[in-house]
Amino acid sequence: MRVFITGAAGFIGSSLVDRYLELGHTVVGYDNFSTGQESFLEGAAKNPRFQLVRADLGEFETLRAAMRGADLVLHLAANADVRFGTDHPRRDLEQNTIFTWNVAECARLEKVPRIGFSSTGSVYGEAAVIPTPEDCPMPVQTSLYGASKLAAEGILQAYSEGFGIQVFIFRFVSILGERYTHGHVFDFVKRLGTDPTHLHILGNGLQRKSYLYIQDCLDAIVLAVDKAEGKTNVFNLGTDEYCELNDSVRYICGRLGVQPEFSYSGGDRGWIGDNPFIWLECSRIRALGWKPKLTIRAAVERTVDYLVSSPELLHARD
Amino acid sequence: MRVFITGAAGFIGSSLVDRYLELGHTVVGYDNFSTGQESFLEGAAKNPRFQLVRADLGEFETLRAAMRGADLVLHLAANADVRFGTDHPRRDLEQNTIFTWNVAECARLEKVPRIGFSSTGSVYGEAAVIPTPEDCPMPVQTSLYGASKLAAEGILQAYSEGFGIQVFIFRFVSILGERYTHGHVFDFVKRLGTDPTHLHILGNGLQRKSYLYIQDCLDAIVLAVDKAEGKTNVFNLGTDEYCELNDSVRYICGRLGVQPEFSYSGGDRGWIGDNPFIWLECSRIRALGWKPKLTIRAAVERTVDYLVSSPELLHARD
Repeated sequence: MRVFITGAAGFIGSSLVDRYLELGHTVVGYDNFSTGQESFLEGAAKNPRFQLVRADLGEFETLRAAMRGADLVLHLAANADVRFGTDHPRRDLEQNTIFTWNVAECARLEKVPRIGFSSTGSVYGEAAVIPTPEDCPMPVQTSLYGASKLAAEGILQAYSEGFGIQVFIFRFVSILGERYTHGHVFDFVKRLGTDPTHLHILGNGLQRKSYLYIQDCLDAIVLAVDKAEGKTNVFNLGTDEYCELNDSVRYICGRLGVQPEFSYSGGDRGWIGDNPFIWLECSRIRALGWKPKLTIRAAVERTVDYLVSSPELLHARD
Repeated sequence: MRVFITGAAGFIGSSLVDRYLELGHTVVGYDNFSTGQESFLEGAAKNPRFQLVRADLGEFETLRAAMRGADLVLHLAANADVRFGTDHPRRDLEQNTIFTWNVAECARLEKVPRIGFSSTGSVYGEAAVIPTPEDCPMPVQTSLYGASKLAAEGILQAYSEGFGIQVFIFRFVSILGERYTHGHVFDFVKRLGTDPTHLHILGNGLQRKSYLYIQDCLDAIVLAVDKAEGKTNVFNLGTDEYCELNDSVRYICGRLGVQPEFSYSGGDRGWIGDNPFIWLECSRIRALGWKPKLTIRAAVERTVDYLVSSPELLHARD
């Protein structure tokens, strides 16, 4: 089939490009390279079944033309910056909500039958039920990022109901692994590279978070798109565990062989809208036969190894 | 206090304008008169404590200036057309989601401490629990209208968390009463005025719906804004009953003194995204001391009387 992937030069997007090429499909990637990396598509670029469109999701007619003939749209492009939402309050609306509408509308106009979407566990805000199932009590949004992704989910669901497009919504925990380019592991590895004797941590270090390895994430997406039969299919994607931020810091320092002193900003949240406990209940995707292969610890360690071996990435924005 | 009301010339907006003027407050109304009625503001216009700004919510700087100094924003303006969403798929995104962001952002910039918002029971899609409480299981959106209002709720909730604005979200059932200008009572009264011998009904007539009288709705809004103390406060607003569409038709025909023959389009939904059963659990607002005064039947009959006495409104768009 012909798979159209937005955010194709990003961490998860480029990994999906490679996966669908490996599976023998034709892939059209779409990226504006605002945060995407040329190097992530070096392998794909050599494949005659891959085509790249350099453009923005705001360019509606370009998007529509690029999507023509696709059997499946996987919409990964996003402003994935949860933490600094309040610094530029329109960015999430624009890049996550309005651009998802553009994707849905182009899919409708081009009669694409299926759309998969990278949502986030952040749509649960501070969930009333933990581990949090997909049908947990209606949450209150606590970040512009989560709100913008929930809005995008709603648009896709309404398009599914109104126009018969089959929709797959994936609510991710934080994804780790090769090509990971932002988040706390990135920040800590980078700062410990500069000063291995000291590490400052936002919050009290007791925040409980969940992570999933990129290849496990891709397994779940490919499986769900293949097997799920509902009009709208919503899946949490995470491991069956969580760790404290301090655990994660220990894995990182252990892998790097450093023993810094720690200081803490204090409080149970690292920033406004930070969620002190994220743990998703994932029996729905497991019922399709999916099982993650890596533990959180193994995923963190593999990410550290990747970052250490990719100094150009670690210092790209210095 | 100084109350800023969007959609000030609309059905609910203009009624809110009158209510807050009666309560002795200063009111700034904002409306682009795309669907608002000059006549609804005739009373308010005579009040020196009322000021009207004729502009669109897309005019950001005008909106911001109009909001300056407000103690409370009540955001009622919307595309309230649930039924024809699929005919113009961007309208709900634009008028309900993006314009709500404009309202929230202007409130932030102008340091308005409180925002009330007219959401809808449509955000529950086809609810898994009926009567539906505010914290029911996370629904799947079934209309572009519901999706756009849920998105707006999320934006306001994130603004509350991120910027300390207190937010009041009201999920209405359909509101009836004086100044009601669209919906099934309007359509039926109008068509029976032309041909009292026959009435065609979308669906099978067994759809179960809920309605609330406008003055009961206003009581709830004023009370909630006065009493609710959370950062984000979400309230269902409806009576503790529902009726079948056929019941409502009987009330209308009885009030008009007509005995038409009925024909039905069939099926349990009137249109794509129609919800065959809407009934909201309203104990949260009742716990603040609110109680609706009119039954659904009384609200329907009062609406029929109003429409019969307002032929210029009934035929405004002929």
